[in-house]
Amino acid sequence: MSNPSDKPPTVKARLPRGFADRAPGDIAATDKMLEAIRCSYELYGFEAVETPFVEFTEALGKFLPDLDRPNEGVFSFQDDDDQWLSLRYDLTAPLARYVAENFDRLPKPYRSYRVGWVFRNEKPGPGRFRQFMQFDADTVGAAGVAADAEICMMAADTLEKLGIRRGDYVIKVNNRKVLDGVMEAAGLEGEGRAAQKLVVLRAIDKLDRLGADGVRMLLGPGRKDESGDFTKGADLAASAIERILGFTSARAGDNAGTLAKLSDSVGESARGKEGVAELAEMAALFTAAGYDGRVVIDPSVVRGLEYYTGPVYEAELTFEVKDDNGRPVRFGSVGGGGRYDGLVARFRGEPVPATGFSIGVSRLFSALKAMKSPLVEGAGARGPVVVLVMDKTELARYQGFVGKLRDAGVRAEMYLGSAGMNAQLKYADKRGSICAVIQGSNERDRGEIVIKDLVLGAQLGGATKDRADYLELKQRAQFSVPEDRLVEAVREVLARHG
Amino acid sequence: MSNPSDKPPTVKARLPRGFADRAPGDIAATDKMLEAIRCSYELYGFEAVETPFVEFTEALGKFLPDLDRPNEGVFSFQDDDDQWLSLRYDLTAPLARYVAENFDRLPKPYRSYRVGWVFRNEKPGPGRFRQFMQFDADTVGAAGVAADAEICMMAADTLEKLGIRRGDYVIKVNNRKVLDGVMEAAGLEGEGRAAQKLVVLRAIDKLDRLGADGVRMLLGPGRKDESGDFTKGADLAASAIERILGFTSARAGDNAGTLAKLSDSVGESARGKEGVAELAEMAALFTAAGYDGRVVIDPSVVRGLEYYTGPVYEAELTFEVKDDNGRPVRFGSVGGGGRYDGLVARFRGEPVPATGFSIGVSRLFSALKAMKSPLVEGAGARGPVVVLVMDKTELARYQGFVGKLRDAGVRAEMYLGSAGMNAQLKYADKRGSICAVIQGSNERDRGEIVIKDLVLGAQLGGATKDRADYLELKQRAQFSVPEDRLVEAVREVLARHG
Repeated sequence: MSNPSDKPPTVKARLPRGFADRAPGDIAATDKMLEAIRCSYELYGFEAVETPFVEFTEALGKFLPDLDRPNEGVFSFQDDDDQWLSLRYDLTAPLARYVAENFDRLPKPYRSYRVGWVFRNEKPGPGRFRQFMQFDADTVGAAGVAADAEICMMAADTLEKLGIRRGDYVIKVNNRKVLDGVMEAAGLEGEGRAAQKLVVLRAIDKLDRLGADGVRMLLGPGRKDESGDFTKGADLAASAIERILGFTSARAGDNAGTLAKLSDSVGESARGKEGVAELAEMAALFTAAGYDGRVVIDPSVVRGLEYYTGPVYEAELTFEVKDDNGRPVRFGSVGGGGRYDGLVARFRGEPVPATGFSIGVSRLFSALKAMKSPLVEGAGARGPVVVLVMDKTELARYQGFVGKLRDAGVRAEMYLGSAGMNAQLKYADKRGSICAVIQGSNERDRGEIVIKDLVLGAQLGGATKDRADYLELKQRAQFSVPEDRLVEAVREVLARHG
Repeated sequence: MSNPSDKPPTVKARLPRGFADRAPGDIAATDKMLEAIRCSYELYGFEAVETPFVEFTEALGKFLPDLDRPNEGVFSFQDDDDQWLSLRYDLTAPLARYVAENFDRLPKPYRSYRVGWVFRNEKPGPGRFRQFMQFDADTVGAAGVAADAEICMMAADTLEKLGIRRGDYVIKVNNRKVLDGVMEAAGLEGEGRAAQKLVVLRAIDKLDRLGADGVRMLLGPGRKDESGDFTKGADLAASAIERILGFTSARAGDNAGTLAKLSDSVGESARGKEGVAELAEMAALFTAAGYDGRVVIDPSVVRGLEYYTGPVYEAELTFEVKDDNGRPVRFGSVGGGGRYDGLVARFRGEPVPATGFSIGVSRLFSALKAMKSPLVEGAGARGPVVVLVMDKTELARYQGFVGKLRDAGVRAEMYLGSAGMNAQLKYADKRGSICAVIQGSNERDRGEIVIKDLVLGAQLGGATKDRADYLELKQRAQFSVPEDRLVEAVREVLARHG
């Protein structure tokens, strides 16, 4: 057998760019967050479903933002029968495949949620990973905008269940049909305009980042950014550009005001009017259910994806936190979605209405951490009780102590390394343990064990100048009990520190 | 914009071979099982860690069973800088990379658990997937076999916590050093024998499936299977073969008996004696902790992986269930592991002792389902309360009912499709809903709603011949209440059916 340790260490321990490990605290905290989202979605009648990580590249389609070539942006590889496979890049394309494949069996409308990792073969950057998590909810088979309205309200409820206060978030709603109407009214219509429309969509989607002037350039001749890179524009006439920018800034003081402005923007376009009517219907549902101000019509939201066909929506956090340099930072969008009536049709050849919402889990998690949400703070922070090994011939005895603690439901372990007592106590500190259990030969002869409160012990150093207080504290930080009081004494110490 | 629904449906909705979707019941049941394993591991002081799905191919090494070429068996693809990346094929190789990368920062011994999907680019078959889930626990940095013994006992405890009764499972323990000793005693030693030893290992690993005669052929000239495929043998001399087969069948009535036989098998080999001594030390710990019979020394277990360096262990279910044809089936191995002191050394150039155990989650889950474990039965079976839409102009009103139910913590939804009343009730049945809420114009005028108990309703058909009973049942299955008693009445119906 070739023993790898005989070879020189030529392999570097590192991860590819854009991939990251997760520490126990983050795992536990994220799990708590996901559980809260799950409960919220189930309360709304959505049920779980899960698809695998690998799909036929063809089944995923080419519905990626800013991409015209199908294999760019996704991780792809050929199967042994030469067919191309890809890692999923979102949870929507696999859902469309799943629904099409199981169409006759599924209840319709089909309401499902999914959570999982997705992969993008893109350039990673700060906070931008090549593997990240999404949490989606979709309703397939419901043509009416009540389905879209419900998902928007569910998004609002979910953020509140995560501890984000009313006023600290907003769900913004728009409708692609209104944009179609505006473009029609601006004289831009017809099949040949598809590519140009995509450029317009992606330009508007950058409003937040570039402002109106930047978008104006992208709608016109194009734009050179700070690095000198040039982005081709949509080459629209000035009047069309102003009409579109007018549309994106049509948000008024309330939904009724916004809807009135949008009616003007779409002119006589039938499709545009249909979009405005849908928004009006959604607005009425929001009002009736008491969501005014939490869910608002906002035409600046278009979403960058090509496949949306009707309502689009985005969940934004509006509160500010301070960054490491004390500067105020907004988290902005933590999720979004919309209606995609064409995706399932790719497989079935008949239109299948669908609408869905996707939460960017890592982004939302960062926001909850920044606002010090009790949901994610301090999860999984404490280590187990550590039983020290003072005498290597007594392992079975120490294992017995550990067994008693575990039987009582107390997380516990026997130290398994080869270091001495001080290093063992340091190990317990590093694990974040509250309590250590020690039995040397003297204690063993007396049938006793020493219980050490590591939290109090750490405070002993600079705690008090008063001699009497110090002695009392010291007595509480480390004390002996008979062996049969092990569990009781450990529980007492654990209870001290919640 | 190119609307995909305009195109003919050329894309087939299907998954690549060896990948599968998961339904809500399976997801919920598996989650419950994973949670039980997690609790068990945390009780033992193991903490969570998670690595990404993608690693440098080089970092994963070539530690796959039955593979000599590094890229066979794993899904690999080239990054844009031409470096090879792979999907992880187990959770051990990424852990070795993680520990090596974070060595100075981690507490040592480092005790961690990980659960997640792994990928094998192999030929799928019945119950054999290319994406499957593992749940691992590892102790890195502990050289003594107390660490191995602890993991074996934890495996036993974990199976019991999952509801598998004592006597229905066994943890079998062996030691690679003993096999080394046996081979040495049989005159097979030295560096040049590495490849031959791997053939021996894999031959013994097939004992369960092929029996002693099949393994005898694999240790000798080779073996042709039923399909006519020929597997090359280890070409050992007859005396060496019998010595090895004698070793694998050395299990006696108790650990002491087995250890005595093993002492004979290894002859004067120093390495073999070391292995027997380690097994004896582990056996003593099992006895002291009360695990005799649950954890047993069994030399027939060797595990097929090249990288093990000391104790190896396997968790086997020993009870039988009936398959679909009424024939008895054993589940056999649901997990295994061992000591791999060389894996972290690949990165660090110094030996780092490590031992770990991996549960095959899908296999264990199948076993729990087959034994009708309450842990996984009936999870996530019931659908939400469905509020029917009897009048499309009253969506806000129905939405209001749904809102009240959700505010009271009751899972509920408004029907979002376009079908009539009967189809809506069928939808609720398909969701597994217990209760539907109905308000037509007559009820609305009276300020009432109708509550329909779908479970009782389904029983009405053939339930009773007695007219009075039938009427009473019918009355309970569908009744009117004032609107303000909605939540109360729904709760009453839900409570009827647990």
